[in-house]
Amino acid sequence: MAAPLVPRVTGLCYGGDYNPEQWPESTWAQDAALMREAGVTLVTVGVFAWAWLEPAPGRYEFGWLDRVLDTLHEAGIAVDLATATASPPPWFSHAHPESLPVDSAGRRLWYGSRQAFCPSSPAYRDAALRLVERLARRYRDHPALALWHVHNEYGCHNAACYCEVSAAAFRDWLRARYRDLDTLNEVWGTAFWSQRYTDWAQILPPRDTPTFRNPGQVLDFRRFCSDALLALFTAERDLLHELCPGVPVTTNLMTGQFTELDYWAWARELDVVANDHYLIGADAREPGAQIAFAADLARSLAGGPWLLMEHSTGAVNWQPRNLAKAPGQLVRDSLAHVARGSDGAMFFQWRASRAGAEKWHSAMLPHTGPDSRIFREVVALGGHLRRLGEIAGSGVDSDVAILLDYPSGWAQETPAQPSVDLDCFDEIRRWHAALWRAGITADLAHPGADLSRYRAVLAPALYAVDDATVANLTGYVGRGGTLVIGPFSGVVDEHDRVRLGGYPGAFTDLLGVRIEEFCPLPEGVTVQLTDGSIGHTWTERGGAPRAEVVARYADGPAAHAPAVTRRGDAWYVGTRLDDPSLARLLGGVLAAAGVAPPVAGLPAGIEAVRRRHADGRTYLFLLNHTDADAEVAGDGAGVLAGTDLLTGTAFAGVVPVPAGGVVVLAEEAA
Amino acid sequence: MAAPLVPRVTGLCYGGDYNPEQWPESTWAQDAALMREAGVTLVTVGVFAWAWLEPAPGRYEFGWLDRVLDTLHEAGIAVDLATATASPPPWFSHAHPESLPVDSAGRRLWYGSRQAFCPSSPAYRDAALRLVERLARRYRDHPALALWHVHNEYGCHNAACYCEVSAAAFRDWLRARYRDLDTLNEVWGTAFWSQRYTDWAQILPPRDTPTFRNPGQVLDFRRFCSDALLALFTAERDLLHELCPGVPVTTNLMTGQFTELDYWAWARELDVVANDHYLIGADAREPGAQIAFAADLARSLAGGPWLLMEHSTGAVNWQPRNLAKAPGQLVRDSLAHVARGSDGAMFFQWRASRAGAEKWHSAMLPHTGPDSRIFREVVALGGHLRRLGEIAGSGVDSDVAILLDYPSGWAQETPAQPSVDLDCFDEIRRWHAALWRAGITADLAHPGADLSRYRAVLAPALYAVDDATVANLTGYVGRGGTLVIGPFSGVVDEHDRVRLGGYPGAFTDLLGVRIEEFCPLPEGVTVQLTDGSIGHTWTERGGAPRAEVVARYADGPAAHAPAVTRRGDAWYVGTRLDDPSLARLLGGVLAAAGVAPPVAGLPAGIEAVRRRHADGRTYLFLLNHTDADAEVAGDGAGVLAGTDLLTGTAFAGVVPVPAGGVVVLAEEAA
Amino acid sequence: MAAPLVPRVTGLCYGGDYNPEQWPESTWAQDAALMREAGVTLVTVGVFAWAWLEPAPGRYEFGWLDRVLDTLHEAGIAVDLATATASPPPWFSHAHPESLPVDSAGRRLWYGSRQAFCPSSPAYRDAALRLVERLARRYRDHPALALWHVHNEYGCHNAACYCEVSAAAFRDWLRARYRDLDTLNEVWGTAFWSQRYTDWAQILPPRDTPTFRNPGQVLDFRRFCSDALLALFTAERDLLHELCPGVPVTTNLMTGQFTELDYWAWARELDVVANDHYLIGADAREPGAQIAFAADLARSLAGGPWLLMEHSTGAVNWQPRNLAKAPGQLVRDSLAHVARGSDGAMFFQWRASRAGAEKWHSAMLPHTGPDSRIFREVVALGGHLRRLGEIAGSGVDSDVAILLDYPSGWAQETPAQPSVDLDCFDEIRRWHAALWRAGITADLAHPGADLSRYRAVLAPALYAVDDATVANLTGYVGRGGTLVIGPFSGVVDEHDRVRLGGYPGAFTDLLGVRIEEFCPLPEGVTVQLTDGSIGHTWTERGGAPRAEVVARYADGPAAHAPAVTRRGDAWYVGTRLDDPSLARLLGGVLAAAGVAPPVAGLPAGIEAVRRRHADGRTYLFLLNHTDADAEVAGDGAGVLAGTDLLTGTAFAGVVPVPAGGVVVLAEEAA
Repeated sequence: MAAPLVPRVTGLCYGGDYNPEQWPESTWAQDAALMREAGVTLVTVGVFAWAWLEPAPGRYEFGWLDRVLDTLHEAGIAVDLATATASPPPWFSHAHPESLPVDSAGRRLWYGSRQAFCPSSPAYRDAALRLVERLARRYRDHPALALWHVHNEYGCHNAACYCEVSAAAFRDWLRARYRDLDTLNEVWGTAFWSQRYTDWAQILPPRDTPTFRNPGQVLDFRRFCSDALLALFTAERDLLHELCPGVPVTTNLMTGQFTELDYWAWARELDVVANDHYLIGADAREPGAQIAFAADLARSLAGGPWLLMEHSTGAVNWQPRNLAKAPGQLVRDSLAHVARGSDGAMFFQWRASRAGAEKWHSAMLPHTGPDSRIFREVVALGGHLRRLGEIAGSGVDSDVAILLDYPSGWAQETPAQPSVDLDCFDEIRRWHAALWRAGITADLAHPGADLSRYRAVLAPALYAVDDATVANLTGYVGRGGTLVIGPFSGVVDEHDRVRLGGYPGAFTDLLGVRIEEFCPLPEGVTVQLTDGSIGHTWTERGGAPRAEVVARYADGPAAHAPAVTRRGDAWYVGTRLDDPSLARLLGGVLAAAGVAPPVAGLPAGIEAVRRRHADGRTYLFLLNHTDADAEVAGDGAGVLAGTDLLTGTAFAGVVPVPAGGVVVLAEEAA
Repeated sequence: MAAPLVPRVTGLCYGGDYNPEQWPESTWAQDAALMREAGVTLVTVGVFAWAWLEPAPGRYEFGWLDRVLDTLHEAGIAVDLATATASPPPWFSHAHPESLPVDSAGRRLWYGSRQAFCPSSPAYRDAALRLVERLARRYRDHPALALWHVHNEYGCHNAACYCEVSAAAFRDWLRARYRDLDTLNEVWGTAFWSQRYTDWAQILPPRDTPTFRNPGQVLDFRRFCSDALLALFTAERDLLHELCPGVPVTTNLMTGQFTELDYWAWARELDVVANDHYLIGADAREPGAQIAFAADLARSLAGGPWLLMEHSTGAVNWQPRNLAKAPGQLVRDSLAHVARGSDGAMFFQWRASRAGAEKWHSAMLPHTGPDSRIFREVVALGGHLRRLGEIAGSGVDSDVAILLDYPSGWAQETPAQPSVDLDCFDEIRRWHAALWRAGITADLAHPGADLSRYRAVLAPALYAVDDATVANLTGYVGRGGTLVIGPFSGVVDEHDRVRLGGYPGAFTDLLGVRIEEFCPLPEGVTVQLTDGSIGHTWTERGGAPRAEVVARYADGPAAHAPAVTRRGDAWYVGTRLDDPSLARLLGGVLAAAGVAPPVAGLPAGIEAVRRRHADGRTYLFLLNHTDADAEVAGDGAGVLAGTDLLTGTAFAGVVPVPAGGVVVLAEEAA
Repeated sequence: MAAPLVPRVTGLCYGGDYNPEQWPESTWAQDAALMREAGVTLVTVGVFAWAWLEPAPGRYEFGWLDRVLDTLHEAGIAVDLATATASPPPWFSHAHPESLPVDSAGRRLWYGSRQAFCPSSPAYRDAALRLVERLARRYRDHPALALWHVHNEYGCHNAACYCEVSAAAFRDWLRARYRDLDTLNEVWGTAFWSQRYTDWAQILPPRDTPTFRNPGQVLDFRRFCSDALLALFTAERDLLHELCPGVPVTTNLMTGQFTELDYWAWARELDVVANDHYLIGADAREPGAQIAFAADLARSLAGGPWLLMEHSTGAVNWQPRNLAKAPGQLVRDSLAHVARGSDGAMFFQWRASRAGAEKWHSAMLPHTGPDSRIFREVVALGGHLRRLGEIAGSGVDSDVAILLDYPSGWAQETPAQPSVDLDCFDEIRRWHAALWRAGITADLAHPGADLSRYRAVLAPALYAVDDATVANLTGYVGRGGTLVIGPFSGVVDEHDRVRLGGYPGAFTDLLGVRIEEFCPLPEGVTVQLTDGSIGHTWTERGGAPRAEVVARYADGPAAHAPAVTRRGDAWYVGTRLDDPSLARLLGGVLAAAGVAPPVAGLPAGIEAVRRRHADGRTYLFLLNHTDADAEVAGDGAGVLAGTDLLTGTAFAGVVPVPAGGVVVLAEEAA
């Protein structure tokens, strides 16, 4: 049996951020009692406590935290102890104004909020590490300590800083990357617009300019920004590893929307991949699809079980209109993450704040108090998670991967592109949602990863690729894999330089097509394809000299040109298909590749995901996203049989899933 | 008989801003002659004349102003003499660049416009007071002087400054308010996000931050900004009182739209409440409703008669599309203000500018000259006002009050609220418009005021309340008053800290409801109520343990929960009712409370307001906002009878009101 | 026969920007061979080569450029040699940070883009002139040198700078213009809002202010900005004239959209008027109308033949959605410019960039390479232009002029105008498009120009006029000319001061109307006129004491007032007529004035323009903008007869013009 993700927690983790410094000490005992009532097993303590841990430079106040940890330990609750470095106190920023971040317009951003520091600031880094060292030394032997929680949501508000300190750090990073200026000038294409650098000292972050900035500079700056924050993480982690060996170290990612950091590089440095996820009310995708994407990406980053570190019991407070969750949704959303590999469900936060910028954010214990629907659902969820303990450590079945490369997306986001509508990350999420609706669980994968385990690989938007990626994908298809590539892929190299000789430069051979010209569509305009599909946003003119033409443009600026082609199992889609057309195309391709949902004939709105232990035990999660009771029946390919861990009911053949509800079937061996 | 509002003006005031320094002296005699033709009795002189009064530091040129005042006095026109401090001259700003305002992004704003000064600047204050002293000494005995006009529209463009000087002043203000940092940390909730202050010097204005700023800090900064400007006013006023006793002092407020200053605090300091009002072409409310709100608020601030200091004869120039007024509207709009308590009608400005930023603003004497429809209407209005002289000093009948608290609105405007659509001040105006359409004249009132004179009190949006307010409103209901409270009221205290234990925290007892969760609606979505009403923007989940449920949500995220409740005469509306539903609800509640329009059975589009002298004489204003002639008849509750002061015609029983016209009935004693 | 526009190029110029420094030297020979294949005769070299010509201060590297010019010369291709001063290298900006431009908010803009310099910077000017001198000395005798190309698209990104250096230069400019401060105060109307200047040192550029800035200051600053850049041009030009006499000097204007420079003043300083033009995908006007306007304005500026210096073979990359050109459009668009007086067709750029901010901009040689539709069309165009060689130097027939004054437009663009919808430059383009659709070729003209050659003159939007212009237009009508004036014209003088006594001040006598009041319409609202026309945006109240009323407003705020009037041949249109109404009105007025298209009875979508040599030879361009073949036949007024220069086919009576195609008929003498 696999070791637990968080060593001192047996089964699944359950809890949330606990900020006792915001409340009178008299409430702490009640907190512990209510946590026990709810079945809480793990809480994150002290995420924003720096100002309370170190109220003045070098003066530390740990007494209160000692008492908090003792109280929790006595209640049998493990602690994910935060290093508290995400929000330096006013005394620090006041003493070090040069540590405040500066935006591309030269505007300094001030404290009185959070994350108000320049990622390259030595003063910040030193102060943070001093605090971490003191925390590690003091608590490394505390019996409640189960996990270290470094910082919080890195880069959420200060992903980029353009100050002089950052400029110097950027220059150091570039010097390490390129060694000489000729190489830098070459890969940035500084011959255009007379931007040739003749001294490292001339190089700046891409601050506001009279018109478009150099795309290579912008791309490398975004790489640098991700690395600069990662260096802060690894510095804290290394110190914790050194002083407190054996306790894993994590930080909370935000895979659902946040694209500023190269999480593939980050995930390699984490002992435990933790993720925060919040539904976006204005997102066109279904809540279930939003969760599935975030969870699948978290699992793919982890390469196995991960931990949902934050989500919400109800509405958040930072969107324009913050929608409440329906009754029962708290439970279903939590289990939707667990279905996709999370070994637990944690919330921001335990007790709803009384003041401050997030006082209207929902919590496990709402303003109304424990006599409330939300707290009753929190208690119910605790029971569910306890009953699901045996699934901890199991994996998730997936036969298909969707490629996602952060720097490629960053390159595509530089301005002066053919069309502002050709968003990269959104398109990846849209293809993922198409699979989710079809009942197919997908991994996300880095384009350079070993893809051999997958029956099919999708590349909805892979603008920039290096030669190794081309070889990787070509090899994958050559070894029998099915690959579907979306438009405007492979057109540039990893430095955002066009691959010459016809588009999609990197993939012309693999796909057998040769595109000459892009034809973006005006806003809201669609085109018809000869197979009845509808395209929008983008079309292309060119030919398919060594590919079969599956569909052509029937009208529009690229009329008669190939729109969908295949060369063997290498498919190319040269337009943005609308949702139904995309679903139909992918449905056919994946079925032919042998990719199928875990249960055939799923009713619409029922999500089915299978977790699987290395020893063969499997668990089928059935989540009902509709307002009506439903029944799930295995088809000829397999008969459902097993016991619902949540209720203890045994089923065979047909499993009823109540409206808005969840069944977790511990399946009988086939 | 009450003393006149402006001592040297008998009857109603009539005139406008007069800026002779913009014109050759040769025009002044013509101005005076045309003013006499128009019946002008009072003009405001010198509002932007600083650069002409003091062309260099300490060098004063009063000769031209002497001649202006003499000319006016000879023509029998009184003068509202401005202190000219709203726009420091270039020589001042050039010599004191540190006095220029700085916005939250650190951007300095320059002169070459108006109000380009930091409200906390000692240099500005000193220079302004030096000028005021010289003006007061020179003109205190001038026979034309009737009123002092301090500054102009305080805060219109420089309500907030974030410079270092302002930062220091803000700290002084906070220190005076809270005395110790522990209290400040407590009320600002600095425990959230590690914002604890350990030295006063660390505190800054809420400048731009990486993400949401501390709401308590933002709220107190807005309080400070209002106070900082008020201190400038009282400094000028005190000097004028000292040097020129007996001449009242005013400044012109902007009650219709401007919400940056706490006008309740300001009104206490004014000898005469003066107000500027401009119609907003893009406002969804009827022009008549816009005027009524501004006028009712001005009257409520004054506690009696007030003075319309500026409005326009036609189009303004600062809106995106500046709509002209219909023929006759100039007269009707002016009398609409008079109906609601203004003892006069003044305009910006006498003579339309030839150059500068407001050259396209209409005036009493337009670019075309006196041979113009507008000037002819100006002359007609002068006659009307002369004929209405006897109403000067009378009050306005009103049985209902709408609560308006500026700091509560500011608190609600801090970001990270549940819904951006839940505007506070707009909602107050919307409820007021609902009453205006029903013919009911309302006062506005501070929530802490003595409300005993009102049959009903409405609180459309009262987000933040202190304990004294809770007691005041509870006492009002306890003593038989009817109270209607709108959604998201009473949820926080005066420091924007959540009142725990169920919403609407301050009013759960009074209303007998216990709300657990807010459910904002997506943009454009509505819900149905069980009584047929329509709600939008906002719904709530909870119960009504000690209240009668008047209507429930029939659908939407809060389906089945109470939407409208009453506990005796304390009503709660948990959603934003659409206009017809709101009108129906308020209509029923107010009728039950004994609130009725001054004339029953008013035709649609006819406005009726009654002014009343302390000795019992009453004047019924009937304003026709439609394009058709109308007739107004008293119903069983009272027979209309009296003489139209504008025409001298006597009526009894039925009063015809011509399309777009006005009748002012001096009523016969009942 | 006229001397060729570019002395060393016989016939029409053909080519584009050639940036060999962006490519390995090994490609240069292929470039020359492909250029020969395409028939290229002239290329612009080195526009952004400063960093390659002078990699360090005072260190010049001309060897590569020597080899480029030699290679081109050997291939028979002439060179338009750029002075390379549009983009200073990083070493320059790094050494002179004070030379970077600053926007009105005080935000410094950085290098790493292009045009990152303050136009008033002495450091920039000196460095630019040093480079120009070295280039001139080195290449003045090179046999390839045919034209000097100063800088690039002046003001495209740095038209205005608000730094301290610019402030001092602005003051110098003002002092030279006004000599004394009293005059400046008078024309700026500083009496409004207390803005009187008492020392030149107080005057600043119109930086961000608390509210509206002084309109006179803003207007003069825009005049200064145009002059500051023009002074940079003339400094380079004078040096080139001195060192390299006999070689003409140009810079590339952007007449189609760019309105920041007073091109009438600029055109006087150019030896050759060159123009860049790009289609705007989101422009409501037809592509053909966009081209026609830009070309007609370029020709009008030149007073004869001019040179299309840049346009595109396909999509550009700097619009939100960059539309491709239809097959054949590349040729037709090029010839559309030639039809309207361009003695050539040049492109940005020869070879599509591999990297940098414009890598997605189309080129003559696309990323795909010479085996591509675009390159084949480029070759075809080369043939066409060779066959059209004899038209070089000919003029264009035009009987009507549309008035365009840049400072008038700038004045109208200052904020606080009656309506934001009343765009000036757009309206001029809209009237021009109405004529284009009617087959009528128009010149653009400065309002002060000699207009006697025109049968009719249109002034769609002429807000500000000086007295000389009033006299010029009055004289034009007095001598029998037909004049049509649009709304909100003549209302202010050249300093943006209202002309008093009734609108449209300057033209009340000429037009016989007296407008009292403007009535802008709400967004999207239209009014009906009594003649069936539709107006939008704007209406006016007033009378027509000495004019015939052609149509009145049937509804709207100005109902019953005159909308269209005429006093003899002086027409006034007081509203914005919609496109059909405008076409009808202008159609009637122009027909009465004897203005007719070159061919009567043109089918819709067929453009016809006639070029004419001084010796009487004429060329009729027929361009088919539709997807269907068409036939053009002369009517009774003239029989078409001649030979299509593109195909050699002779026609008489009826000329077929294929779908999307072009015929250039060398006409037989009548």
